[in-house]
Amino acid sequence: RVDGARLWDSLMELGKIGGTAKGGVCRLALTDLDKQGRDLVTSWARAEGMSVVVDQIGNIFMRRPGRNNALPPVMTGSHIDTQPTGGKFDGNYGVLSGIEVIRTLNQHGIQTEAPIEVAVWTNEEGSRFVPVMMGSGVFCGAFTLEHAYNATDIDGKKVRDELERIGYIGDQVCGDHPIGAYYEAHIEQGPVLENADTVIGVVPAVLGLSWYDCTVTGFESHAGPTPMEIRKDALQVSTYIMQEVVAIAHRYPPYGRGTVGQVQVMPNSRNVIPGQVKFSIDLRNVSDESLNHMHEDLVAYLEAMRQKTGLSIELERVSYFPPCPFHPDCVDNVRAASAALGYKTMDVVSGAGHDAIYAARLAPAGMIFVPCKDGVSHNEIEDARPEHLEAGCNVLLQAMLASAGV
Amino acid sequence: RVDGARLWDSLMELGKIGGTAKGGVCRLALTDLDKQGRDLVTSWARAEGMSVVVDQIGNIFMRRPGRNNALPPVMTGSHIDTQPTGGKFDGNYGVLSGIEVIRTLNQHGIQTEAPIEVAVWTNEEGSRFVPVMMGSGVFCGAFTLEHAYNATDIDGKKVRDELERIGYIGDQVCGDHPIGAYYEAHIEQGPVLENADTVIGVVPAVLGLSWYDCTVTGFESHAGPTPMEIRKDALQVSTYIMQEVVAIAHRYPPYGRGTVGQVQVMPNSRNVIPGQVKFSIDLRNVSDESLNHMHEDLVAYLEAMRQKTGLSIELERVSYFPPCPFHPDCVDNVRAASAALGYKTMDVVSGAGHDAIYAARLAPAGMIFVPCKDGVSHNEIEDARPEHLEAGCNVLLQAMLASAGV
Ligand SMILES: NC(=O)NCCC(=O)O
Ligand SMILES: NC(=O)NCCC(=O)O
Repeated sequence: RVDGARLWDSLMELGKIGGTAKGGVCRLALTDLDKQGRDLVTSWARAEGMSVVVDQIGNIFMRRPGRNNALPPVMTGSHIDTQPTGGKFDGNYGVLSGIEVIRTLNQHGIQTEAPIEVAVWTNEEGSRFVPVMMGSGVFCGAFTLEHAYNATDIDGKKVRDELERIGYIGDQVCGDHPIGAYYEAHIEQGPVLENADTVIGVVPAVLGLSWYDCTVTGFESHAGPTPMEIRKDALQVSTYIMQEVVAIAHRYPPYGRGTVGQVQVMPNSRNVIPGQVKFSIDLRNVSDESLNHMHEDLVAYLEAMRQKTGLSIELERVSYFPPCPFHPDCVDNVRAASAALGYKTMDVVSGAGHDAIYAARLAPAGMIFVPCKDGVSHNEIEDARPEHLEAGCNVLLQAMLASAGV
Repeated sequence: RVDGARLWDSLMELGKIGGTAKGGVCRLALTDLDKQGRDLVTSWARAEGMSVVVDQIGNIFMRRPGRNNALPPVMTGSHIDTQPTGGKFDGNYGVLSGIEVIRTLNQHGIQTEAPIEVAVWTNEEGSRFVPVMMGSGVFCGAFTLEHAYNATDIDGKKVRDELERIGYIGDQVCGDHPIGAYYEAHIEQGPVLENADTVIGVVPAVLGLSWYDCTVTGFESHAGPTPMEIRKDALQVSTYIMQEVVAIAHRYPPYGRGTVGQVQVMPNSRNVIPGQVKFSIDLRNVSDESLNHMHEDLVAYLEAMRQKTGLSIELERVSYFPPCPFHPDCVDNVRAASAALGYKTMDVVSGAGHDAIYAARLAPAGMIFVPCKDGVSHNEIEDARPEHLEAGCNVLLQAMLASAGV
């Protein structure tokens, strides 16, 4: 069993780097603070006798040898970059759980058959540089190293230059690194476990995700003199589409999700009928089939609205992640480890994307969720209970041992 | 009859000051360009032998004496400040029609019983400084000179300092200036006249207007892991209110207007369920009774939504102009003048506020509308036909003569 207090202390110490007044963390990818965080985590790994390798996109792999080092390593990991108003647990928990697993193995002198590795993936959050999950994405070949290198932040700074600046651009070719199995421990970032008073979420899959930009173009005119009958109000038409996004999600339960999070109204003046409205659409579901149905329902609704209103309605898909079922072996290992440890579990499909979905393209993968307070994440008030974090780490340890062999 | 070509030439010459590439005008209140426009208009007035007086808020009164100068003047006027992307006609047409009336009287050696004045009101548009219709508002006592002086633009510059800087802060106490009757010629800023193929709009009234800010507060959470059933999506609730604003307007025809023009979504991120949405509501109607009913319907709907959703919904009234019926004498004079001149007329209630609604608090007032292309205004593509502008100016001349006496 892991040492929960040691894990908690490490979380609190890492949380000081970029720590905010409200108890959160602001440690954006590839900033000086990210470098300080990376330095701290790798110093802890070296203290445990681990070797440290960095690849071309700055992913860090910290390795504890096994009995048979010809075997691909059993890996765990996550990220230590945060949202601008992020918390101490998102990502950080996954990385430091990995370190705690190693400390526990060392403490008890346990040798594994396969080597064990802890990964720190570069820029998971995507807050400073898009695309999100950049390090794991390049690693698994979802997009090219070149594409990632040329991503710029709002000041025009490039990923490549920032990696060099903080000293975390490595030699290892991205993806030139076999993986035997991958596990990731993470706070749930939703309310399901807490509401069910359950400690461990077994994650069978991650929802697929379609992101769109929708643009409705009407005709800008004066709110006073323009009679209701002849208006071409882009916002009014948009409100029906925004409601349909939610209706579509309800049509494909229990995992359908539909969200409009971002809206831009033009010219956005109190006494001008909006001439154009641009808004985001986020659709998610657990199967390709259901996500395709949601897409088709949206497309059909927009066509009906075009016919009905005569306004121009454009839909552009800006991102797509297919639903990602995890490997039955890994899922079973998580479930079995929880049962052996006596923890109450339930299946919780992940609604958010994680580095694990990219790792899953290369190796059997699975995730372990623990509750977070009120289901809140991406927020400085993000919080989690030490005993839950310890439980998740115990499950991680046992699942990894099952995959690595003792 | 007035000289339509001379009027058009003056409009084009004034339109050069602040003229834009797209044929519009950007001449914000109390800028150097506003000063240039004021200098040009007053030079034209002086050339016609008029006296020029400026009051404390920068309103300009250009006077042609009558036979009996103890009588209060018959006044016409409007504004020469524009929207940032405004046109050549809005406001400018009303002022230059007044100048053209004087030129015509001088040309034909016609003396009036009462004096005639042309007013240029300060900052009607409200684009740079709020409140809108500032000069006429202070003049009629709707708010204080102090309040207007302290209004600041986005750079923190004050009205008082800017008036001094451009040399248009006068000695005359605001409102210490009797008016016998007031007429204002203006482009319609809506499509009614053009659609009815009619030259002159007789304006019986201006719609009353209620402006609100509505704030809906839900709970910000992650678009992926948060199930549909437990969301407190501030944007979804807002869309129903936005639709109700339009439904309320339709419930009180033919003059009901309901518009949501401005929307701010927080945190406005693609994968975050909006925690708070703030938007403007603009309700208008022709009678106090109908506008009150609209207000009550809105309040009742918001209460029902609070009950239904449990979200916090706040409504704050930020501006109110009561409906403004014009004086029957002035309305009749406009109608009679149009008939005598052989112009096709129809009644067009003004949907937009004008300086005339403040003048109407002090004296009998009326307005004359002429068509504008596609009903478009507050836009660089704003356009109007020379023969329509000439017709409106002829009606203004005859209506003013009827009030002033020949
Ligand atoms: N964990 C996380 O927030 N990933 C970003 C992509 C998503 O919205 O799921
Ligand atoms: N004419 C004009 O645009 N006035 C501003 C106030 C309103 O929206 O009616």
